[in-house]
Amino acid sequence: MALFLSDNVTGACPEVMDAVVAANSGAVLSYGDDAISSSLQVRLAEVFETEVKVFLTVTGTASNALALSALTPPYGKIYCHELAHINTDECAAPELFTGGAKLVPIRGENGKISAHSLAASISGHGNVHNAQPAAVSITQSTEAGTVYQLDEIAAITETAREHGLKVHMDGARFTNGLVALDASPAQMTWQAGVDVLSFGGTKNGCLAAEAIVFFDPGLAQDFAYLHKRSGQLLSKMRFIAAQLQAYLHDGVWLRNARQANAMAARLSAGLAALPGIELAYPTQSNEVFVHLPATVLDGLQAEGIAVNGDELDCSAERFVAAWNTSTADVDRLLAAIARYCANTA
Amino acid sequence: MALFLSDNVTGACPEVMDAVVAANSGAVLSYGDDAISSSLQVRLAEVFETEVKVFLTVTGTASNALALSALTPPYGKIYCHELAHINTDECAAPELFTGGAKLVPIRGENGKISAHSLAASISGHGNVHNAQPAAVSITQSTEAGTVYQLDEIAAITETAREHGLKVHMDGARFTNGLVALDASPAQMTWQAGVDVLSFGGTKNGCLAAEAIVFFDPGLAQDFAYLHKRSGQLLSKMRFIAAQLQAYLHDGVWLRNARQANAMAARLSAGLAALPGIELAYPTQSNEVFVHLPATVLDGLQAEGIAVNGDELDCSAERFVAAWNTSTADVDRLLAAIARYCANTA
Amino acid sequence: MALFLSDNVTGACPEVMDAVVAANSGAVLSYGDDAISSSLQVRLAEVFETEVKVFLTVTGTASNALALSALTPPYGKIYCHELAHINTDECAAPELFTGGAKLVPIRGENGKISAHSLAASISGHGNVHNAQPAAVSITQSTEAGTVYQLDEIAAITETAREHGLKVHMDGARFTNGLVALDASPAQMTWQAGVDVLSFGGTKNGCLAAEAIVFFDPGLAQDFAYLHKRSGQLLSKMRFIAAQLQAYLHDGVWLRNARQANAMAARLSAGLAALPGIELAYPTQSNEVFVHLPATVLDGLQAEGIAVNGDELDCSAERFVAAWNTSTADVDRLLAAIARYCANTA
Amino acid sequence: MALFLSDNVTGACPEVMDAVVAANSGAVLSYGDDAISSSLQVRLAEVFETEVKVFLTVTGTASNALALSALTPPYGKIYCHELAHINTDECAAPELFTGGAKLVPIRGENGKISAHSLAASISGHGNVHNAQPAAVSITQSTEAGTVYQLDEIAAITETAREHGLKVHMDGARFTNGLVALDASPAQMTWQAGVDVLSFGGTKNGCLAAEAIVFFDPGLAQDFAYLHKRSGQLLSKMRFIAAQLQAYLHDGVWLRNARQANAMAARLSAGLAALPGIELAYPTQSNEVFVHLPATVLDGLQAEGIAVNGDELDCSAERFVAAWNTSTADVDRLLAAIARYCANTA
Repeated sequence: MALFLSDNVTGACPEVMDAVVAANSGAVLSYGDDAISSSLQVRLAEVFETEVKVFLTVTGTASNALALSALTPPYGKIYCHELAHINTDECAAPELFTGGAKLVPIRGENGKISAHSLAASISGHGNVHNAQPAAVSITQSTEAGTVYQLDEIAAITETAREHGLKVHMDGARFTNGLVALDASPAQMTWQAGVDVLSFGGTKNGCLAAEAIVFFDPGLAQDFAYLHKRSGQLLSKMRFIAAQLQAYLHDGVWLRNARQANAMAARLSAGLAALPGIELAYPTQSNEVFVHLPATVLDGLQAEGIAVNGDELDCSAERFVAAWNTSTADVDRLLAAIARYCANTA
Repeated sequence: MALFLSDNVTGACPEVMDAVVAANSGAVLSYGDDAISSSLQVRLAEVFETEVKVFLTVTGTASNALALSALTPPYGKIYCHELAHINTDECAAPELFTGGAKLVPIRGENGKISAHSLAASISGHGNVHNAQPAAVSITQSTEAGTVYQLDEIAAITETAREHGLKVHMDGARFTNGLVALDASPAQMTWQAGVDVLSFGGTKNGCLAAEAIVFFDPGLAQDFAYLHKRSGQLLSKMRFIAAQLQAYLHDGVWLRNARQANAMAARLSAGLAALPGIELAYPTQSNEVFVHLPATVLDGLQAEGIAVNGDELDCSAERFVAAWNTSTADVDRLLAAIARYCANTA
Repeated sequence: MALFLSDNVTGACPEVMDAVVAANSGAVLSYGDDAISSSLQVRLAEVFETEVKVFLTVTGTASNALALSALTPPYGKIYCHELAHINTDECAAPELFTGGAKLVPIRGENGKISAHSLAASISGHGNVHNAQPAAVSITQSTEAGTVYQLDEIAAITETAREHGLKVHMDGARFTNGLVALDASPAQMTWQAGVDVLSFGGTKNGCLAAEAIVFFDPGLAQDFAYLHKRSGQLLSKMRFIAAQLQAYLHDGVWLRNARQANAMAARLSAGLAALPGIELAYPTQSNEVFVHLPATVLDGLQAEGIAVNGDELDCSAERFVAAWNTSTADVDRLLAAIARYCANTA
Repeated sequence: MALFLSDNVTGACPEVMDAVVAANSGAVLSYGDDAISSSLQVRLAEVFETEVKVFLTVTGTASNALALSALTPPYGKIYCHELAHINTDECAAPELFTGGAKLVPIRGENGKISAHSLAASISGHGNVHNAQPAAVSITQSTEAGTVYQLDEIAAITETAREHGLKVHMDGARFTNGLVALDASPAQMTWQAGVDVLSFGGTKNGCLAAEAIVFFDPGLAQDFAYLHKRSGQLLSKMRFIAAQLQAYLHDGVWLRNARQANAMAARLSAGLAALPGIELAYPTQSNEVFVHLPATVLDGLQAEGIAVNGDELDCSAERFVAAWNTSTADVDRLLAAIARYCANTA
């Protein structure tokens, strides 16, 4: 059973799938010069309450690596949490797309960097022997399932600006963070100092749809060439745009994320109530990290419930709730864990 | 009207779209570890009558650039026709993915290179000052809408082997070439000496589905890392695999290509019969290249019929038939062109 | 006997070697922050009669590839003669240092491109599918031993500007071209529209000393990082700067080039006077390209006189005169060739 | 006064300079096909008591980055101390030359990693989402002026082998480490498990001469192309080879390093004896790291004695002794520091 292994084990939500089917009519210009793609640009400007330049991709890895390539020279440094997806889970895609920029990992509790730890890491500006400080990337919600508060983001981006860094946000789980904060998309991004966002749709109800959103159009001036060069400019782009159109329509994206977060909260609370079970990080979005006794793990495995070892912390397990996780799903999992906990005791 | 501008202005054929919808159920392992993806590997081995290693992408550019990156060191030379898509239409993606390999353009009639012109171009082997001969790439059907005969392919690959080159086939329109030759997939690829194929589905009835097919598994040994690094490893890969499954089922791919080729033949014959109209290349698959008088072009434009200037030959226009082009579509276009030809005369 | 194989088979001229020895005293700041290096910058500004930004390297390959990396994005196109050193003899170094830019070879007589052939080659500006026209590189004197006239250079650079291209000059044999034209360094470079020059010293009397000379300081803004990143920022840079100081002092560079050119002219005239011997290109600088009968080649080989096959033209041989080639050297070679010619007749 | 700022502020030792002058005679084959270059290969095989493949460069940055490019795929991970020169002082050259490999910094006392800390850092083998463990690089003597013991090296390389990693040694100050250990070159390299060595000559008495030494010829199979492509294949290579020939002749290299180490030891002992002065790291080769009160720093500056802030530790200063540092030099420095220490007290 793949449930809870990740939010990408799910399919697409009905509205998104319907939109893909609906987009399949007529002959339209390719490579994004179609009506659906154009109107998505308008829609995202509305959603973010500012002018944006948008490029679509089909993976978060492509979005992140491409976005970073607009922010750094090949001899630049990109600061990020040591557990950032770009640093640990993209098989050196950022290095490829940036032409060899250097990721500088920063330690920090609960998957977060701070303005202070960022400032302490920045060095070498103007020294020809050093790769040059160029950008910082933060993940919202984080790889630990936690959420940066608006003032934390603002403090980081202020430090970034003081040191001449551009700011990228990896929003593979953007909406989970957004509804957790109950903030507006504008507040959590450009109003807090973010220059470029990897806006993820795939994990939260799309088939494969990600958007790179530039809040500073100047940064995107030549980006179309980088985008094409990366192999992410789909000829039938309407099918990607249609997903995000439906996703952003009528609150589907927010509904999906709220459901996932609520189920994670339910799971988290249920786990915390079990004897001998300890959470690894506070649960703030749709991911739950927990230390489970070996007997519990063995029991779950015997039942065919796959469990994802936490890449951050070898002694913790990760459970991810998705847009379609149900109360019953959570309760079944809790019951199974409880059963093996009891056996342990 | 986007019709005839390219075969990528179309949507997906019904069988493919149905398969995408059908794939949207249940939670399955991500990144291609699902049942649909696994069975596609088996299906492609059947189709090509040999063991294959398959990696999926969503664009031809990604397929080509990635495939080439498995065939050349960064200091290698890749020989290709000067009008090859990899040389003219991929915004230096092959250079990016290969780490800086050099494309060596070869001239040749009707969009084809020959064993002879290839042999005459190869130089520098073992000379440390020269980029090293590493691979040759041919396109089937070609960028000129022509089709390599089996013996032409075999002669090229034999020359390649003599010089230690690996062989890539850009099969963005593979099936159009295949049905034109009435050959088997095996005959047109590995039996003729091809090492790696970019097998295209998008232009012939898929939404966005391409496969990199390795006939020599040894070449694919570490390819999974290159694939992931390129941002082409989709988390919900089942949706790409499902397209190709349906595409290859029950002859859908062959039916689609036959329809496109037949409509191109009809268009080509109709054009050739018009006074003062000359074809730029022989029509052998689903693309028609033709020299049109300016008055005809102006007339078509006035009617809102978009026409694609041939990138190969500035004085020629390109019309592409697709899986869903109808006799009526062709006849309407012919009638319009005939109308303006008459005006000219 | 390596004589005539290339001008790089020679050592350093006495003034240059003396300067290296003289530079070996005291402890000075490293990485070019020493007095010799500083004064070289001043000296080059005098020589070129304008403000320049200068970076030193030890090979022409590094100079060229680095200079180009300041002129093109990684998705750019660099136009050059098909026989340009950057295209044929640098093992894809330009592709490495530019991050994957594409060299576009242009054909042309006598090793030269023309404004016309350049204009005819430029395409794709603003089309996201095409690598973007970014730069043109010309070699002075050329790989065929010919020399661009000032008006030819100006016409090429004017075409370049019209299409938004930057202009690089590969001056591995800059001084040989300069004295051939009897022009000033300013006239042959920035006054004729050149943006960046690879100024070669090694072939004309230095041990290993090349300078990248920017006439537009804006292009060099961040170049120090590219320079360091390439491994060309020597710690004891004074030893490279000292070579070029001595080279440019008191006309040493001009004297050396004049000697080489004169000896090539003597050789060329002598060859042309022999029965059945035909020059492959007009001799305009210090390289002579000639078609020699097989019996002559065999005879020379038997005498231990190494002969360099012309990389441009498989049926021609190349003889290169250097700063220290003597009349006696030339006459001995001519006598030997005459001997075997006579045998042939 | 540049003295003590680094060992690269010095010139060349007499034997090396004499050899450069002596190499300047006659016309010889270029690009390393000369007698001096050939005999250097033989000499290095003698020095290391095994078959070696050697490639020369002119900077440590080029040596390191190139050597690493032979050990890792572009999606590989290179483990190193967080203060390794390759990580902090080469402006992303390793990332350039490897095509985007990822340096993974490891913390450790006194500038050293350990077999244990290395083992703890290695992860992701076979996981397609992770850059792949490929190599480890250690610096001997280290960036902190300390020296790995033979058993420490052996333990690290054993761990490396267990995890399939290749081993690189950055020997910019190889000889300083060698004489500190009183080991043989073989013992400190291949016998201890090192695959490739950056063998530095520049800091210890050469003008600009570094050698990449492969102990496993298989790793160097195609290295000549990488070497050429990097712009480090000098045409007049004899001048680099001649330096290393003289350097390795008659113990010059060992004598130079012993002098440097002895002077560092004298300085270190003198500093330790001063009131209120504390060493930052144990002095084991030719570098001394020390915490100096601000008044001392101000005093030295007022006297025109430049002091290098330690890049490793912002509160420490670095003094480097070189092959030509004299007892008088050391004593003068010590006296100056003592003077300002006294003022402080």
